[in-house]
Amino acid sequence: MSIILHDLAGADPDLRFSPYCWRTRFALAHKGLPVETVPWRFTETGAIAFSGQGRVPVIRDDGKVVFDSWSIAEYLEEQYPAPTIFGGGTGRAHARFINAWADSVLLGGIARFIVRDLLDVVADKDRDYFRSSREARFGMTLEEVQAGRDARLPAFRETLTPVRLVLRRQAWLGGAAPSYADMIVAGTLMWPRCSSRYPLLADDDPVTAWFGRMLDLYGGLGRAAKTP
Amino acid sequence: MSIILHDLAGADPDLRFSPYCWRTRFALAHKGLPVETVPWRFTETGAIAFSGQGRVPVIRDDGKVVFDSWSIAEYLEEQYPAPTIFGGGTGRAHARFINAWADSVLLGGIARFIVRDLLDVVADKDRDYFRSSREARFGMTLEEVQAGRDARLPAFRETLTPVRLVLRRQAWLGGAAPSYADMIVAGTLMWPRCSSRYPLLADDDPVTAWFGRMLDLYGGLGRAAKTP
Repeated sequence: MSIILHDLAGADPDLRFSPYCWRTRFALAHKGLPVETVPWRFTETGAIAFSGQGRVPVIRDDGKVVFDSWSIAEYLEEQYPAPTIFGGGTGRAHARFINAWADSVLLGGIARFIVRDLLDVVADKDRDYFRSSREARFGMTLEEVQAGRDARLPAFRETLTPVRLVLRRQAWLGGAAPSYADMIVAGTLMWPRCSSRYPLLADDDPVTAWFGRMLDLYGGLGRAAKTP
Repeated sequence: MSIILHDLAGADPDLRFSPYCWRTRFALAHKGLPVETVPWRFTETGAIAFSGQGRVPVIRDDGKVVFDSWSIAEYLEEQYPAPTIFGGGTGRAHARFINAWADSVLLGGIARFIVRDLLDVVADKDRDYFRSSREARFGMTLEEVQAGRDARLPAFRETLTPVRLVLRRQAWLGGAAPSYADMIVAGTLMWPRCSSRYPLLADDDPVTAWFGRMLDLYGGLGRAAKTP
């Protein structure tokens, strides 16, 4: 029986751009677990009310409900240990740092490049919610947040330095094989890829080469994902 | 037989402030390995020429010579597996990200707060080398690098957000027990602690509480270290 994943979608139901849902998609694929995704929009809180909260990803696995991408990763590792995504307790503990870095530095950084573009891909019924909630968060209009992004691009790319330094020494963030660390960062990069045409990464960046390899994993799961 | 550690020292030979040497000190202590430190100054390149390069930490362990804090950590884990500092291959791979983050974001950030203070603690014979090499790196005088640090303090503290997020969920960066991830970040924080009186961390920061626990480990190794 497939695991059900409630997955953020745009006006186009095939456009899936949640960085958190992508972490879950990659983790499910890594473990070879069949998944059935259910498109969900920001304002469809009723559709996931059974989870006791209002954000995706939410999974349903044979009656068990788990939400929050980190909790889902821990659940999957516990329930379906092989192949591992954490490589043990210390690997998991260290992955939490990478998760925290991605959530704060990377997501926060990317938002300033694509948040206005996102408005063009979210479902019509989500547009008012999306604009007002994000403008409240940033304290300015979406247009103002995104303005002047070309000038800010070098500084953003600089924030990827830790990833770049690691990739000088090993093929994957997980070492010789991909781990949840790779899924965290690649999942985060699926957000701009699937919601904007802005070239956030330079073609000759080693991060781009690594991300390309992530896109090709699991039968090209990331590569096949629809982009705007 | 003790492991010999060539350890950066100041004008006061008891002042040990290298963030890289501290990572090694903590790793040696974690594994319960007896160590004999040999004070070393920046300009004493001849004293470590046997290692084939010119920076510390360098360790000598029964005839074997290893340099570079990361390589030393890997060597110690291989040679003296228990108690572990990496918790396996994936733990080690993920720790490399934390190491890269500490080397780029954290060290680079801290330097701008203490680099002029460091000039007051380095050995007299190191002062010219220290000033000219660091001023070449920053493209300005040490005084200019450090100027206006109070105004920049909130932004620096913000860069510790990933550490703070992790410590909300687990006692150590290594999870339930300290790992090399803790040693990386605490070792890095020993640099300002042992070279400057500048209050880089707020008293009520959870990072400060965690760092205090790191200082108390291994018989209070970090706590006992001389400060200016």
